[in-house]
Amino acid sequence: MKVLVTGAGGFIGAQLVALLRATGRIGEQPVSALALADQRLGDVPPGALPLEGDLGSERLLQRVRDFAPAVVFHLAAVPGGAAEADYALGRRVNLDATLALFEALADDGKPPVVVYASTIAVYGSSLPEVVGPETPPRPPLTYGAHKLACEILLADFARRGLLDGRSVRLPGIVARPRAPSGLASAFMSDILHALAAGEPFTCPVSPQATAWWMSAQCCAENLLHAAVMDVSQADPARAWPLPVLWLSMAQVIETCAALYGEDRRQLVQFAPQAGLENVFGRYPRLDDAPSRALGLHDDGSAEVLVRRALSA
Amino acid sequence: MKVLVTGAGGFIGAQLVALLRATGRIGEQPVSALALADQRLGDVPPGALPLEGDLGSERLLQRVRDFAPAVVFHLAAVPGGAAEADYALGRRVNLDATLALFEALADDGKPPVVVYASTIAVYGSSLPEVVGPETPPRPPLTYGAHKLACEILLADFARRGLLDGRSVRLPGIVARPRAPSGLASAFMSDILHALAAGEPFTCPVSPQATAWWMSAQCCAENLLHAAVMDVSQADPARAWPLPVLWLSMAQVIETCAALYGEDRRQLVQFAPQAGLENVFGRYPRLDDAPSRALGLHDDGSAEVLVRRALSA
Repeated sequence: MKVLVTGAGGFIGAQLVALLRATGRIGEQPVSALALADQRLGDVPPGALPLEGDLGSERLLQRVRDFAPAVVFHLAAVPGGAAEADYALGRRVNLDATLALFEALADDGKPPVVVYASTIAVYGSSLPEVVGPETPPRPPLTYGAHKLACEILLADFARRGLLDGRSVRLPGIVARPRAPSGLASAFMSDILHALAAGEPFTCPVSPQATAWWMSAQCCAENLLHAAVMDVSQADPARAWPLPVLWLSMAQVIETCAALYGEDRRQLVQFAPQAGLENVFGRYPRLDDAPSRALGLHDDGSAEVLVRRALSA
Repeated sequence: MKVLVTGAGGFIGAQLVALLRATGRIGEQPVSALALADQRLGDVPPGALPLEGDLGSERLLQRVRDFAPAVVFHLAAVPGGAAEADYALGRRVNLDATLALFEALADDGKPPVVVYASTIAVYGSSLPEVVGPETPPRPPLTYGAHKLACEILLADFARRGLLDGRSVRLPGIVARPRAPSGLASAFMSDILHALAAGEPFTCPVSPQATAWWMSAQCCAENLLHAAVMDVSQADPARAWPLPVLWLSMAQVIETCAALYGEDRRQLVQFAPQAGLENVFGRYPRLDDAPSRALGLHDDGSAEVLVRRALSA
């Protein structure tokens, strides 16, 4: 089967491409051709088709149509902080280009599988004690609003039989490179890098701040699985949060101390920022039973999470 | 205050404009200027500014910006059946032009009030016994998907302080003119016209089919109220179903019989269509308490509903 990855030059895209090349298949089906799309692609593996440029451009969309993928992983996005700072850019990429891609791929004869990387940023703050399938999403950033809108649009393409859409809501994925990413949640990765390296870290949320964590490797595994999981009987919204580890910053620091040395505890100073704490520090328990029932999974333990996060 | 009505040439738009002109005010504020936008406008009342043309065009958006309304009622839409038949048209009007209007109106100094006519078509079929604020919307038509997406986008403009957005989900509004409207729910109006006139009617849903009903007059009253109701403490989604009368077709026929004569019962033949029955015949009870708490209201009784519907 022919496979397209958008955002292939990004952090999660690179992990997914590496996993795709290592396994050579999705479920039972061997990958016969791989196309990689991104604004800028780094090293393109031999044999892969590079589709570099603006995803929303007619030129690139025509190349996507010509490639005619059977499975698409749509990861390309302007991250939350950057999209909030530049509305026009966020709209163009996160809303317009995404819908343009859906329209270019739509095929009532053989609807391609589209795994859409949505985000837990659809949920918002002031969440109930347990977030579940009935929790109404209240996106606290334009990024989340655009992702939620595209989930709804993708579900509509699925309803019309034009795409086999599957939206998965990604939690905080670690550990991203330490370079500026435009992600407001970058601190979740930065603290792991700092503590592994034995460097001091000023944490912008409190020790009690709870978030939903997943390693990039686990995320890539879930994306591949999302392409083949049986959703024929599933909720027509076709959107699921990935199962997560629900950890406080204190638990993460404790795990790093156990792995890298007790002295790590002293390296962290806390300077909570109300805005970040409100959006990224108050995630409650997640009822991810419907996601697990479809075969999606978390990292298993905080220790595995941190090890994997830092081995990437 | 300056007021803009889009879709002013339509059925509900005309009702709203008539009510605006009759009252001359919204809440305590007198209407100082009225602009009417639509693809095609019929008779424009003296003193009103006609904005005829494609709402998504830069030319018309510039005229909207020049007018600088303090309150906007955004009613312009391609209805459900027509949007399902012509995706490109539905997308252009119901999604693109709506977002373009929001962007044109956005003002962080003095955010205008935007009352957005959304729809109960966001909910979908397979509804629970009671539809409430926690019921996840599952739009069964592209029309509803686009409306839901725009609710989310409007809530995001409100969160950013650029628009004072209020989405109200309109139920089946009666009685529309008998001309073809592109609405799949047109039968809800057609049966009233037929029975009032003493004509036979073939009903495309069963006698047990339950729907949510409102007269156009009540709808216009609610739209005006939506512009002034206090939403400062309200759900950040800023979207409410209008309170409804929950009536079966049998109840509607009974009401017509009581009003226009017992012989009306014999005029109705039933030829239920599965598609229509599924979408328009299975509305359960609506928990509209949050809407009522904001001062929105229904027609009061089936008899008042039918009388008002046919006096328009």
